[in-house]
This record gives sequence, C-alpha cells and structure tokens, in this order.
Amino acid sequence: MSGKRRRIVILGGGFGGVYTAKHLHKLLSKEDVEICLVNRDNYMTFQPMLAEVIGDALGVYDTVSALSSLLPKTTLYINEIEKIDLKGKKIYLVCPFKKQHIVLDYDELILALGNATDFIQLQNGVAQHALRFKNLSDTLILRNHVINVLEAAATENNPQLRQALLTFVIGGAGFTGTEVAAEVCDFITKMLKKIPCIKKEDIRIYLVHSKDIILNELSPSLGKYAMQLLRKKGVTIKSGLKVEAVTPHHAILSNHEKISSKTVISTAPANLNLVLESTQGLPIAHDRIKTDPNLLVEGFDHVWAIGDAAHIPLPDGSFAPPTAQFAVREAKTLAQNLAAKMALKPMKPFQFKPLGLLAALGHRKAVGELFGRIKISGFTAWLMWRAIYWSKMPGLSRKLKVLFTWILDLFIPSEPVVLNINSRKTMHHLHFKASEMIFDQGDLADYLYIILKGRVAVVKKFEGNGEKIIKELEASNFFGEIALTKDITRTAKVVALESTDLIAIPKDEFLVMKDNFLELDTFLTTTQESRLEELNKFKKH
Amino acid sequence: MSGKRRRIVILGGGFGGVYTAKHLHKLLSKEDVEICLVNRDNYMTFQPMLAEVIGDALGVYDTVSALSSLLPKTTLYINEIEKIDLKGKKIYLVCPFKKQHIVLDYDELILALGNATDFIQLQNGVAQHALRFKNLSDTLILRNHVINVLEAAATENNPQLRQALLTFVIGGAGFTGTEVAAEVCDFITKMLKKIPCIKKEDIRIYLVHSKDIILNELSPSLGKYAMQLLRKKGVTIKSGLKVEAVTPHHAILSNHEKISSKTVISTAPANLNLVLESTQGLPIAHDRIKTDPNLLVEGFDHVWAIGDAAHIPLPDGSFAPPTAQFAVREAKTLAQNLAAKMALKPMKPFQFKPLGLLAALGHRKAVGELFGRIKISGFTAWLMWRAIYWSKMPGLSRKLKVLFTWILDLFIPSEPVVLNINSRKTMHHLHFKASEMIFDQGDLADYLYIILKGRVAVVKKFEGNGEKIIKELEASNFFGEIALTKDITRTAKVVALESTDLIAIPKDEFLVMKDNFLELDTFLTTTQESRLEELNKFKKH
Repeated sequence: MSGKRRRIVILGGGFGGVYTAKHLHKLLSKEDVEICLVNRDNYMTFQPMLAEVIGDALGVYDTVSALSSLLPKTTLYINEIEKIDLKGKKIYLVCPFKKQHIVLDYDELILALGNATDFIQLQNGVAQHALRFKNLSDTLILRNHVINVLEAAATENNPQLRQALLTFVIGGAGFTGTEVAAEVCDFITKMLKKIPCIKKEDIRIYLVHSKDIILNELSPSLGKYAMQLLRKKGVTIKSGLKVEAVTPHHAILSNHEKISSKTVISTAPANLNLVLESTQGLPIAHDRIKTDPNLLVEGFDHVWAIGDAAHIPLPDGSFAPPTAQFAVREAKTLAQNLAAKMALKPMKPFQFKPLGLLAALGHRKAVGELFGRIKISGFTAWLMWRAIYWSKMPGLSRKLKVLFTWILDLFIPSEPVVLNINSRKTMHHLHFKASEMIFDQGDLADYLYIILKGRVAVVKKFEGNGEKIIKELEASNFFGEIALTKDITRTAKVVALESTDLIAIPKDEFLVMKDNFLELDTFLTTTQESRLEELNKFKKH
Repeated sequence: MSGKRRRIVILGGGFGGVYTAKHLHKLLSKEDVEICLVNRDNYMTFQPMLAEVIGDALGVYDTVSALSSLLPKTTLYINEIEKIDLKGKKIYLVCPFKKQHIVLDYDELILALGNATDFIQLQNGVAQHALRFKNLSDTLILRNHVINVLEAAATENNPQLRQALLTFVIGGAGFTGTEVAAEVCDFITKMLKKIPCIKKEDIRIYLVHSKDIILNELSPSLGKYAMQLLRKKGVTIKSGLKVEAVTPHHAILSNHEKISSKTVISTAPANLNLVLESTQGLPIAHDRIKTDPNLLVEGFDHVWAIGDAAHIPLPDGSFAPPTAQFAVREAKTLAQNLAAKMALKPMKPFQFKPLGLLAALGHRKAVGELFGRIKISGFTAWLMWRAIYWSKMPGLSRKLKVLFTWILDLFIPSEPVVLNINSRKTMHHLHFKASEMIFDQGDLADYLYIILKGRVAVVKKFEGNGEKIIKELEASNFFGEIALTKDITRTAKVVALESTDLIAIPKDEFLVMKDNFLELDTFLTTTQESRLEELNKFKKH
C-alpha cells in the first residue's frame, strides 16, 4: 500500500458501525487512514427505546442522534448503497442530486448493515398490508395509523367497519412484539380519554404467538408474568398460532380464523439485507454473513462483518445473538483486530458474556433477567430498564433532553398529532383471499387494478334482482378502467375467487398515461367498448 | 327547523375555525346544536412560529395542537373535503378506510379554509420544483432538504454541482420570505459547525423581492433595518426582481439571470382553496369569498366565511387582511352573529383595529410596529415577539413545553436529523428551459419521460467525435425507455429545445405496466426497435 493513506469504509450506521468508527479513530492516526461511514439516514437510532415513541413518552427526535454529532472525524456518506463489488474493492452509492453513482474505493471494508427492514419476500399479503416495527419511520407510521383508525371509528356509522377499525392484531410475541403490544395498548387507553364515543370495551387487541408462552428469550415464569400483565391491560393472547396472511380487510391465522382488522403489525424475523444478498462471493449461513472468530468474513482478509447481519462464532460453539449489547462489544474487538492487522500484530477472537435482558411492558412495568440468573419484574424492572438504556444513550445533551422529556411526560398530556408529510396516492400492491371484495358496485373509483396472480369475478348487481357473474379475469388482465375514464362510480362489483395479488395504479397516474400513450388509449378504448357491451347484454336479460 | 337539533358545520381547523367553534360552544347549548369541524389534519398549526422549527428552536410538535385537545366538545371529522354542495346543503368528505363518501348535512355552514397550500396553478416550474412554506409538513420538508444538500455538498467532487447545492434562493420578501431567509441562514451557520469541509463563504443565499425595500407591510425604515441585518448574515438581496421560473437546475429571475441552485423556496401569494374554487355559486373577489359586514357570504343566509379565504369589508372601506390576529377576532364576531341570528336578534358588523405587526429575523432579532405608530427592532422586538406569540399559544401544557424547549435550546446543540418517512420514487412533473439537459449519455436510468408540452432533442455523443442530434420529439411522445427496458445507462443525451413540461414515471412502475399491458409492450418494442436502428445508423457514419 506504499505510503498512501488507507481508506476504511464502514457500511451501516447502527450500533455496530458507529462504535467501530469511534474505536478506530482512537486506535489509528488520521495521517494513516481515512474512515468513511455510509448510511441511508443521517442518524443512528437508539432502537431499544423506539417503542416509547408510540405513546409519546419520548419525542420524535429523542431516540435518534445525528451521525455528524456522534462521529465528527468520520467522512460521512448519507446515501443508499447500490452495489458492493468485493472483487474490485468498490462501493457504488446513489446520490439523489445527480444521475451518476458515487464510487468509493476501499482498503478495508466493514459490513455492519443490520438485517433487512424490507420484508418484500414475505408472502400472503404481509409485505403489502402489515405494518412493521423496525426503525423510527415505522414507529411514526404506526403511531399515525393508530390515531387515524381511532378518529375514523369515532364518526363511522357502519358497525362492521367500526369494529375493524378498533381491532388491532400483533403478530409475534418476542421482545419487539410484546413491547409494541403493551405500548399500543397504553397509547389507545390514553387516546380514548379524548374520544368519549369509543369505549375501552369496543377495542380488541390480539397478540398472536407461535409458542404457548410469550417472550421465549426469557424464563417461562417471566413470560407468564408478562402474559398476565398484558391480559390485564386488555390484550387477548392467541398462543400456538401464527398470522398466516393479511389482506385489506382481515388478518388470517394459521387455524384459518379470520379477524376483521385494519391494523395488523408484523414483527416477523428479519432477513439478510437486500444489498448483501445481491453481493457476489459473500459466505452466507442462516441469512447472515459467516465470519471467523476474529470477525473477518470467511475467505477474505480485508472484509469484516459485525452486528445483526453477521454470523459470529463464540468460544462455546454458539453464535452471537443479534442484540445491541453484542454489536457494541463486537465493534470494539473489530477495531482492535483491524489495528492489530495493520500493525502486523496478532488478532484476538471475539468473546462476551451478556449482562442480561430486559423487556418493557408499557406503562411502568417490565420484566428481565440479569446475569442469566436473577429474575426481575414490575416497576423495579421498569426503573432498571429505563436507567440502563438511559445511561447508554450517546451524548450528554441527549441524556439531558430525554430526562426532561420524561419529566414533562409526567405532567403534560400527550398531543395525538398526526403528521402527514406525504399523503399522495401511489402505485401499490394488494393481496386478497378468496371471496373478499375488491370493490363494490357504486363505490368511488380511485384506482386501476392489474392482476399479477390469481383470479377475480366481475359481478353485476341488479335492483332487487340478485347478482350475476359477468366475467372472470386472470393474471395479466386489468379492471376498473370504466369508472376511471368515465369519471363515474364503479359499474360492477369485483370479488377475488382465489388468493389474488393486484397492482393498484392511482387514477391520476393512469389517466396521464392513457392520455399520452396513444396506443395504450386505443387498446383501452377497444377493451372497454366490448366490456360495456357485455354489461348491457346482462341488463337486457 | 322544528324541535330538531341543528347542525353547524365548520370547514377548516385554523385560527378562524377553531376559535369559532370555541365561541359557539360558549354561546349555544348542546341540546340545540351539534357543532362539527372538518379538517384535513388532526391538529391546528400555530403558523406565526413555524419558521422556528427550521432551525430546531422549536420541536416538531411544538407549533401544533391536537384539535381533540382544543375542542373536546366538537364532533371532529379528520377528512379531506371532496365537494361542497351549497344547494343541497351537504358536504362530501373522503374517508381513507372506505370507498364511499361521508355525507354531512348542515343547517349553518362556516367556511374557514384559509388559502390554498397547493400552488399547482403557478406556471414555469414553480409548482414542480420550488419548495413552499405554508404548513408544518412544508417546514419539515424544507429543513430536511437543507440538511440533505449540505451533506451531499460535503462529499461532492464536481465544483459546479457543489456550488448549486450550496446556493439557496428565496422568492418574495414579505413576512414569510424574510423570516424564512433569516432562519435558513442561521440554521446553515449552525450546521456548518459540524461540516468543517464547507466554509461559510461557499454559501450563497439570495432573497429576491419585487420592490426596492423588503417587508413592505412595515415602514420603510424597518424594512431597511431588516435588509441591513440580513446582509450582515450573508444574504444577498435582489430587489426589483421576481423568480420567474424554476427548473431542476436553476432559478430564473425576471431579468433573465440564471442562478444555479438546488434549493428554491417560493413564498408566492396564496390562491383560493381548490375546493372553494370548484364550489358552485360562491361570490368571489380577489381570490376570496365576498361576505357582508356581518360575515355572512353575499347572497346566502346560512353560509358564513372568515379568515384568509374571506373578503370582509371593514367600516373604513378597506378589507380585513389575512392574518391570525384578524381571524381570531372574526371568529368571535361570527359566533356572536350566528347565535344572534338563531335567537332572532340583530347582528353586528365586524370591526377591529390591529395591535401591531412583528417579524422575526432569526437569532434573537426582530422588527415591528405597534398600534401603527411605535417602531421597534433588534433584541427588544425579538423578546416581545416571543412573549406575545407565546402568550397566544393554546393551552397551559403547550406553553410550558415550549418554554422548556426554548430553555433547552440555549444549552443543548441541535441535532440535524433528517426524518425520511417516505422516500419512495413516485410519478412527478418536471419543467425545463431551452438548452437545459434532462439527462446525459451514460447517466443512470431511473425514469421514463412523457412530454406534456415543449420539444426535446435526443443527442448522440461519439467518442472524440462531437455530438449529433438524432431526433426531435414533441408533446405526447416519450423517451428514456431503452435504458429502462435493457437495464443499462442512458444511450443518448436529451436536451430541452424550448420551455418543456415532462412527466417522469419511475422505472419500477413503468416496468410493471409494460409487463402487464401486453399492447403497451408491443407498442414499446416496435418503437424501440426503430429507435435503436436509427441509433446504430449514426454509429456507422
């Protein structure tokens, strides 16, 4: 490498990436190395406290710290990663202000990208219709959604729709699912004080878990304690079940039970990050990157991996779990090993014994285990939970601000404000199950639908005369264009005949395309004429 | 109306709407009337302090109050208004959870919708490319954008693009424009402390104003004081000019000067709300609804109007200005007149003398006039500005929280965190001027473009061999499909030949359409083949 300054590139700005950069700055001199960190967002999220944002115990910005404050000496690239070229030792980044990649050469590469926040691979409507809970945006979207359904229910006259608006389904009762269930429950209780026309008894909250006891990361006795506590709050626990499918109308459980709901939250296990998945040459095991005990990726001598995306062997034969506690320790070992490698000194294998686990259960309650032996629960556990995470928050100013927020939260009622930054209709995917209605005759027309998979029936309703299937449509067909082009309400009902995946194109976008692609217009006009003829034929009978 | 409970419907949850509801609850009994308020957002924005959110002096939620907290007795509809039917006395609302309108009958209607936040009617790229500053979302979008351009500039190697990223243009120097210029300037100064590679001298901030002196709502001496102060901060004031057009690359002024910039903020005068514009039968003057002195809309005896959307005659022959001060007083008069009308008592005409005007100029400076005579400026004016608006904030808990935030702001550095809730690419409109490049040969391909208006040239560049126009395209044509369908970089450069309006369709959406509309695919394939042939012909020469 001659006398040239080496470049260390860290991908990912979570606990793993940020702490690696911090340690490297201490161990290596600025003259020898440039340390770059690439992250999509310009902040690090303090994930353990994210659930507190739902109910306003913490402010929107209180669980995040700007990377520029945390890492003043690091060269920051706030960009999406397009491609990792391990052979060419180059990272390709996307810049929103230009149509060329930013290309970053590296001498040492550290993969600390966490696991996937996208769950596009999940089948059965989960990707399309379930809310997720992984980062700060997810948290705000969930909070906004809860407020929106409650406010809509307050003025809704249709009792079925009202109940669906007041029903909440949480899939998975690991740490995240349990914490979210508790926080959502507390937040709804708080909200209802301002919406007198909705009673607590009208609310249904289901926590669906595949095992008998929730929180299987902890001992059964603590899981049982948590179950009791959640039941007291009004949560119904469905054990031994999974959320199998989600549609715009229902959550469908593994026992085929259909729960009418407009709010399904999935805390499904995470996959490998999509960028890593498409990177050539990475050794993968259990959706994670295989490293040696020194944290070097297997088969590479200048590529490292840590955190949730890494499959790191521990001395006892097990593998490092995907928690913040481990990521922070891994970061330290990685930085030391990288410095040792550069100084041609021996590296040390990673080892760490976790201190304990704590899960918050909403308003002033928590459960946990310390040093694998001591069990704690209730208010004491909650106080400890807050104290520990508070002490780990980065920066004194952050600590002060959070403390103030907590104190204010004791006195000042929360404001259920929904911040809609972008409410534009966009193209999106939909999933329906057999016999579910996509739209009804007479409904307002806002989308054109293309069938990707499955089959639908177009049903004409006659006044007092029942209804008749006038057409069945399969994949690669479209429907809904008549009402859009004629600017009228739906002329027929459309129902799914089997599991069906659709793409919905907003009216405005569709009309622009139609008006400007002449051939598309001709095609649509011909199809439409023949369809209208068919419709009229039925009317005559 | 027999013994039936009357329904009063208020459209709009700004100062006018909220204060009308408050006064009506005091004056009328719950047995006699139901008071409904319709608003798109579930909060009221305290607009006078919005600019403080840019630079973090106030938190995201500190300038808004939930309507449910402000108006516990009012029936709230948090919905978009689709249509106002004055003849049928019905309001049609859109509900995101169902495909039917919510229909609201009214006995008395109060129009308090403010002016338009959409500036879709503005020509010359302003709607497409300028940022606006009207509500809380605009504020957050602006704040995020400023952080984004600074962070992108920090790692940008191209000096032209770097300068464009560091150049900010604000159109209009009334109250809003001036306050925004000052706040943006202060915020950038704060940000640069964390980005050592960008110097203050690299930043260009232009405030473009059509008059000689800014802030023409106040006396010239105060305007001059404000100009001096802004110049000291580093703002260049371009007087006697307007921002004529905005493109993705430039702000173009009325003297044809082109300023290379990625941040143009327009504080253009507001239009009539789109829903009001499409309502049949409303008397309109100067983009506002004409009312009589009692605040009844001319020609109606059960429709009222107040606030920024109303053209209200004052006793001295002038008309009420669109300020919060006036809206609050109008609300009181309206409520009294409505109650008087229902009790068959005489109504009173609206009259009010404003107390004064104050404009903040960023960090601890302001200017203003009190009682039309006393001029104040500097720190005293700023203290008064804060004190007055703070005292007017709704609710004690809000007041306390804002006070805490201000105190914390003195000690705790701000965190320039960019919260990207929705970063998905969507279909959007673009405006280009003659000779501007839309994309370059070799660029990454992310959109298909349809020409709505204007003309473009497709230019092929040859290695060392100059370039050649291979095709001109006009409205209703499209371009950019080759690189999208073949998943390669752009095969040619495209340049606007005149003022051109485009629609950009994201790659993903386009490919889904293409793969599922068979006829569209055939059409594209045919066009593409002939286009590729033409390209190859040129290569051979």
